[in-house]
Amino acid sequence: MSFAISADFLAAENAKLEAAQAEDYQALGRQLSRRGISIEAMTERAMTYAVAVPTWGVGTGGTRFARFPGPGEPRNIHDKLEDCGVINQLTRVTPTVSPHFPWDKVADYNALRQEAARHELGFDAVNSNTFQDQRGQRHSYKFGSLTHAVKATRMQAVEHNLECIEIGRQLGSTALTVWIADGSNFPGQSNLNAAFDRYMDSLRIVYDALPTDWLVFLEHKLYEPAFYSTVISDWGSSFMAALELGPKARCLVDLGHHAPNTNIEQIVARLIRAGKLAGFHFNDSKYGDDDLDSGSVDPFRLFLVFNELVDAELRQAEGFSPAYMIDQSHNVTDPIESLMASAIEIQRAFVQASLIDRELLSAAQDGGDVMLGHRIVKQAFITDVSPILAEARRRKGGAIDPIGLYRSSGYRAEKTKERPPVEGTSAGIV
Amino acid sequence: MSFAISADFLAAENAKLEAAQAEDYQALGRQLSRRGISIEAMTERAMTYAVAVPTWGVGTGGTRFARFPGPGEPRNIHDKLEDCGVINQLTRVTPTVSPHFPWDKVADYNALRQEAARHELGFDAVNSNTFQDQRGQRHSYKFGSLTHAVKATRMQAVEHNLECIEIGRQLGSTALTVWIADGSNFPGQSNLNAAFDRYMDSLRIVYDALPTDWLVFLEHKLYEPAFYSTVISDWGSSFMAALELGPKARCLVDLGHHAPNTNIEQIVARLIRAGKLAGFHFNDSKYGDDDLDSGSVDPFRLFLVFNELVDAELRQAEGFSPAYMIDQSHNVTDPIESLMASAIEIQRAFVQASLIDRELLSAAQDGGDVMLGHRIVKQAFITDVSPILAEARRRKGGAIDPIGLYRSSGYRAEKTKERPPVEGTSAGIV
Amino acid sequence: MSFAISADFLAAENAKLEAAQAEDYQALGRQLSRRGISIEAMTERAMTYAVAVPTWGVGTGGTRFARFPGPGEPRNIHDKLEDCGVINQLTRVTPTVSPHFPWDKVADYNALRQEAARHELGFDAVNSNTFQDQRGQRHSYKFGSLTHAVKATRMQAVEHNLECIEIGRQLGSTALTVWIADGSNFPGQSNLNAAFDRYMDSLRIVYDALPTDWLVFLEHKLYEPAFYSTVISDWGSSFMAALELGPKARCLVDLGHHAPNTNIEQIVARLIRAGKLAGFHFNDSKYGDDDLDSGSVDPFRLFLVFNELVDAELRQAEGFSPAYMIDQSHNVTDPIESLMASAIEIQRAFVQASLIDRELLSAAQDGGDVMLGHRIVKQAFITDVSPILAEARRRKGGAIDPIGLYRSSGYRAEKTKERPPVEGTSAGIV
Amino acid sequence: MSFAISADFLAAENAKLEAAQAEDYQALGRQLSRRGISIEAMTERAMTYAVAVPTWGVGTGGTRFARFPGPGEPRNIHDKLEDCGVINQLTRVTPTVSPHFPWDKVADYNALRQEAARHELGFDAVNSNTFQDQRGQRHSYKFGSLTHAVKATRMQAVEHNLECIEIGRQLGSTALTVWIADGSNFPGQSNLNAAFDRYMDSLRIVYDALPTDWLVFLEHKLYEPAFYSTVISDWGSSFMAALELGPKARCLVDLGHHAPNTNIEQIVARLIRAGKLAGFHFNDSKYGDDDLDSGSVDPFRLFLVFNELVDAELRQAEGFSPAYMIDQSHNVTDPIESLMASAIEIQRAFVQASLIDRELLSAAQDGGDVMLGHRIVKQAFITDVSPILAEARRRKGGAIDPIGLYRSSGYRAEKTKERPPVEGTSAGIV
Repeated sequence: MSFAISADFLAAENAKLEAAQAEDYQALGRQLSRRGISIEAMTERAMTYAVAVPTWGVGTGGTRFARFPGPGEPRNIHDKLEDCGVINQLTRVTPTVSPHFPWDKVADYNALRQEAARHELGFDAVNSNTFQDQRGQRHSYKFGSLTHAVKATRMQAVEHNLECIEIGRQLGSTALTVWIADGSNFPGQSNLNAAFDRYMDSLRIVYDALPTDWLVFLEHKLYEPAFYSTVISDWGSSFMAALELGPKARCLVDLGHHAPNTNIEQIVARLIRAGKLAGFHFNDSKYGDDDLDSGSVDPFRLFLVFNELVDAELRQAEGFSPAYMIDQSHNVTDPIESLMASAIEIQRAFVQASLIDRELLSAAQDGGDVMLGHRIVKQAFITDVSPILAEARRRKGGAIDPIGLYRSSGYRAEKTKERPPVEGTSAGIV
Repeated sequence: MSFAISADFLAAENAKLEAAQAEDYQALGRQLSRRGISIEAMTERAMTYAVAVPTWGVGTGGTRFARFPGPGEPRNIHDKLEDCGVINQLTRVTPTVSPHFPWDKVADYNALRQEAARHELGFDAVNSNTFQDQRGQRHSYKFGSLTHAVKATRMQAVEHNLECIEIGRQLGSTALTVWIADGSNFPGQSNLNAAFDRYMDSLRIVYDALPTDWLVFLEHKLYEPAFYSTVISDWGSSFMAALELGPKARCLVDLGHHAPNTNIEQIVARLIRAGKLAGFHFNDSKYGDDDLDSGSVDPFRLFLVFNELVDAELRQAEGFSPAYMIDQSHNVTDPIESLMASAIEIQRAFVQASLIDRELLSAAQDGGDVMLGHRIVKQAFITDVSPILAEARRRKGGAIDPIGLYRSSGYRAEKTKERPPVEGTSAGIV
Repeated sequence: MSFAISADFLAAENAKLEAAQAEDYQALGRQLSRRGISIEAMTERAMTYAVAVPTWGVGTGGTRFARFPGPGEPRNIHDKLEDCGVINQLTRVTPTVSPHFPWDKVADYNALRQEAARHELGFDAVNSNTFQDQRGQRHSYKFGSLTHAVKATRMQAVEHNLECIEIGRQLGSTALTVWIADGSNFPGQSNLNAAFDRYMDSLRIVYDALPTDWLVFLEHKLYEPAFYSTVISDWGSSFMAALELGPKARCLVDLGHHAPNTNIEQIVARLIRAGKLAGFHFNDSKYGDDDLDSGSVDPFRLFLVFNELVDAELRQAEGFSPAYMIDQSHNVTDPIESLMASAIEIQRAFVQASLIDRELLSAAQDGGDVMLGHRIVKQAFITDVSPILAEARRRKGGAIDPIGLYRSSGYRAEKTKERPPVEGTSAGIV
Repeated sequence: MSFAISADFLAAENAKLEAAQAEDYQALGRQLSRRGISIEAMTERAMTYAVAVPTWGVGTGGTRFARFPGPGEPRNIHDKLEDCGVINQLTRVTPTVSPHFPWDKVADYNALRQEAARHELGFDAVNSNTFQDQRGQRHSYKFGSLTHAVKATRMQAVEHNLECIEIGRQLGSTALTVWIADGSNFPGQSNLNAAFDRYMDSLRIVYDALPTDWLVFLEHKLYEPAFYSTVISDWGSSFMAALELGPKARCLVDLGHHAPNTNIEQIVARLIRAGKLAGFHFNDSKYGDDDLDSGSVDPFRLFLVFNELVDAELRQAEGFSPAYMIDQSHNVTDPIESLMASAIEIQRAFVQASLIDRELLSAAQDGGDVMLGHRIVKQAFITDVSPILAEARRRKGGAIDPIGLYRSSGYRAEKTKERPPVEGTSAGIV
């Protein structure tokens, strides 16, 4: 028998916090009311928001230098679903998971879908993996996958993507996320144009194989693991590819995949305008693709991204339907805690951005009132919407204080008993 | 009577250097011959290369902190043409100038064209200026120009661009370069989407007014003078705009207008692929838009850009016909010296990139021979092609040693006498 | 007669907001009380906090491209003191101003001190200026000032600093801030070692001339206006210089003077540890030395700086007594509004950082509880302390809503009448 | 019997190239002679230059995403010494190796030293490793090593360093390089000051255990694997630590460990001035710590570093005796080829920097002749000194064309037969 956090325990823990929660909620309600905002409308919005959790995110991550495993780590997709289930049970904001293949391969995907459903989870976009060589793989991806100079290697990578679509179809997914590591480490290693042409050739086959209601998400990244050039390095390249492929191809924005100082929220605005915004891989970063917890390093940036998203939603921008996913590497924290905290920070940014009076803001912007425009936006960010987030969780059956409850539940300790330590070294690759 | 460097003086100075030049040229010829390269073919290529000089570049530049004028600075477009004439006289690689309006306004543009011709100069792309307010201007550009929220301001900026086209037509130009400073300094100041839409509305009018054989060059820049968002901030935005406008709109690449760590040569490759590369504003930089002399900070980067350009030229990429311009700010050097040195460094990169055996390179790239591909490219860069550049100048009637000759000619001292010091303060804007 | 905001007007405006303020204050008080924090203690802390305003900050700034003046700009130090007085009148957090010479030169500094006192203002650190040439100046700073290769130029710059000390002494200042623009634009322009040696020689004279109770603040900056190397480019250089000079030399941190991705709060921690933290020039930035309003781009970073400052204060770090100044360029806003907003954002970060339970945080850090350590810090940042800041202002006789009150006072419109527009062009230096 | 490249083979291969080499050498000699430089003096300088190779560099590196092993990889320190021997045999510029522990642990270090000597190799600085957990290790470094909050963990890390000194003593090393991964991933995870204090406590013990003639090299790094703060993140922190420890502590500069846009050569100049420059870990990079081949991305930067080093050498700067080491990760190339190419590029920069006439340069710098100062430096960089490098190799018994000779020798194919493939997965850590 596998340990689970019981509904009774959850209710008992919530009970301890309800009075304080009610007081804070009412106080915030009165303040917002004075600002012309209905707290109930905000709570309802918070309750509708959802973001997907990556199956690979519940394991401990690492760097090229080392990986330091945590206790009770999931050993396979079944353990992962269990952990993802807890995240959604407590936060009520992560009802879907995004799987990665071949990491999450099983024999029976219908069974897996039902297993997920028992954890109250569905499947979001499927992710292919052509950045690693798998045991027994015929062609190596050392010098590229979908853009490899040798056709047989490209076709092997294409076929893997087709297989992912087929798996995703069985799991109920409707999107394929394609991130490739292809690029070069040295000037002269690769012909920059030819590599892009080969990317288009490969993607064309994948695109043509998409089921009618599917989308393909193209994910760009400035660098790493390629350190001189990357084939799909920026939103311009991603946009160029998506445009040529057609309406089912869109551009996925990972917050950590940009050059230093990039204004990411403007990229989001541009992709919205073009009807090409696929969605997000949320995380936070200070240096490169640090894959830290969302909102832990630059929470204002996260909020400004949501400022664009809510703006687009409210003016009903054509073709606007972004997919929200978390993509983080949890190297030093309990991944379940990090994912709960991150999902809540993302939801926080969504609610804060929803506080903005768009008409007032437009008027300030059109009138050249720089200070007023800025203060309207900043005021929304400064507002502590924690009581709204807690209330949304509470009303949906989640925890008022997810991390506190998770800790007192003893879940990780139980899993440490249930899941013998993973074999293998903790050493990274230097 | 205005002082000019005489043909006799030039010939006499060259005579002193010809023996050494011949010896170095022959030695390099033998080395290249062993590598399967004809030095004569390279010299011929060098002789065909040309890059435009900006009229504003011959004045001393400055920063927001200060401007420190140099002696004998040009006071107007007539002085500027004289200085630009010297640059081409000695380097024989800068036969055209790129004017900026209203800075270079005159009453009679046909006369100006003839005046330029007397300096053996033609006119390259014309540049509009909507980033400053001119005395007596009706609407201020403080909060934007082509993207201003108020239509009257936008139309004023549009009309200025139409006027630039008309002036350019009289001067023999066939392209308009549009760089706008529009953007915002604060989150919330501007609606990122609406600003872009207004840009498109304004540009559409300009585009429709282009003469048949004209192009419009859209120039992007990450930041400065706007410090939070810039409407046309990156090549993706520029590309999106150029695509919507049509075939006569192309994307201009200024080497200093990118985020830190950006792989500029790959952007060049992407724009070539799309048939959207307008051309360049050459300069060099270490931090931001430093506008330093081309090749002075990262000469390998400049070379790698030309590696893409020569690659595209030799495979006859469709629609490939880039315009080459220098755009620098000469704050601490004699602008004539800096422009001569820069033009030669640009030509150097062109010739070095021409040394590459494209078939060998392709074979290495397709065969996964990373080291060989890199060494082929690096070997071209390491090669000292100075004798080829000097020979190209010599054969075209220029100076073997342009800076040395310029210094010994006493040109600047003469101009200092002819041109009384410019009025006004040296103070910048802090 | 010069227009001033009357105490009656201030009281009347405050009266309209007092009920709401009281309600929010009490609600926050209850919430904090549950978290073990006394809101009264926090309000008292807020009331003690102070940050200096730069005299040059009340004028409209600009870039090398353009300056767009605002209406009613101050024309001289007298107007500037008037504007600074308003900022402190309404915010009650900026009781001192930091002057800049020769910009603020007057004939009688005792009179100036009394004039400031009538605005309830004192004088903070004096700033020297050797980055511009002044009319009639004997030696140009084009190629350096305190580090110039020519001794006479260095001595001219030294003497200017000595004069600043003397002026500062008369004004009641006790510190000299030295920022130099010295550096180089090209590899080879300057000998990097020799320039630093000359800096030390010059600074030694200035240091030796400091009155007993004075400090000298060395301000580093990565780049601009020098674009290849800057003599005092980073905190390491600043620290090396301050260490050699002696205990009266300290390192000033301007938040915008660092390389991209730099962890500024850790630099602050290092300087605190060494007893060498002079203090701050507060502003915010996204790209370079953007000089935007404090807290407008990355408010979490500002908070994390104060996390270090409050940590040092509470553990009574030896030699810890930082000077707080704002240094911003207000290009598109009313400078008075920007300075009021900025001072409040800085005070906000101070109060938020004061909410942290240092013992709990230490325990989490020492126990390897990464998530708890992070949540404690983040929780303080999420807390909306606006009611505390408003209460501190209210109790000190300031405005509950400074910007709102300033706008309804009509101050700027009155000054526009009183102050005829400043002569001169709006054009920048390109 | 292990395959080795024979002296006869080497001689035969060189013989094919000697005529061309002689012709190029003589031509360059004549050109340099005209510039007042003796090519023989330069060749002699080239022959004296040496840089150490890291033992870990001869294996294939990887990223957190994947590692793609190459054929015939070394399996242990014995294989590594063999490969390092080949590098020096052909380039004659890498006579020492820098070992890493526990990776290179053996039972008998005297035997290892003799084994190295048979490959004509000595031992350079020893490197400790406290960034990974070793099998059976008592205390984990997940939350730090020398700066860990728990004393027992710190002491374990200290003792490892003491062991490294002891091993190094037996190997003939005279320096210990300490790079730690310690830092934090989240604001609040660590007390920035306390971590540094603990670093000092730990290092003090190591410092006190150094043999009389030893130095300890402190290596800073901006980020990775820590993604929010790193204890020794910049040269300022490293300098502060080295200063407190004493004269035997110096600061090691890895070219890839800096923030974007950092002027590394100026840091080198500052450390030289302070007598604190330990030496280098050479590599090249475009984004972060990319660990690419030296000189492959920004060769001018490498040259400018050597410009400072040669300047310091020639003016006999006090305490100047840097240790030169390569530290790269060879993910897509044959490590032997990359290390040979890199060693030659480093030597190239050294020789190019030696071409500069220091007196002329000083005169230009002191006279404010910016263009001349820059051209002197640039001219040295443009000069193709390949014939000097080849001649230095030839005279020392190495290969005129090391990579060509290595390829034709069949060394890697032979080793692939001799060394069965390494066990284990190619998968990285995501």
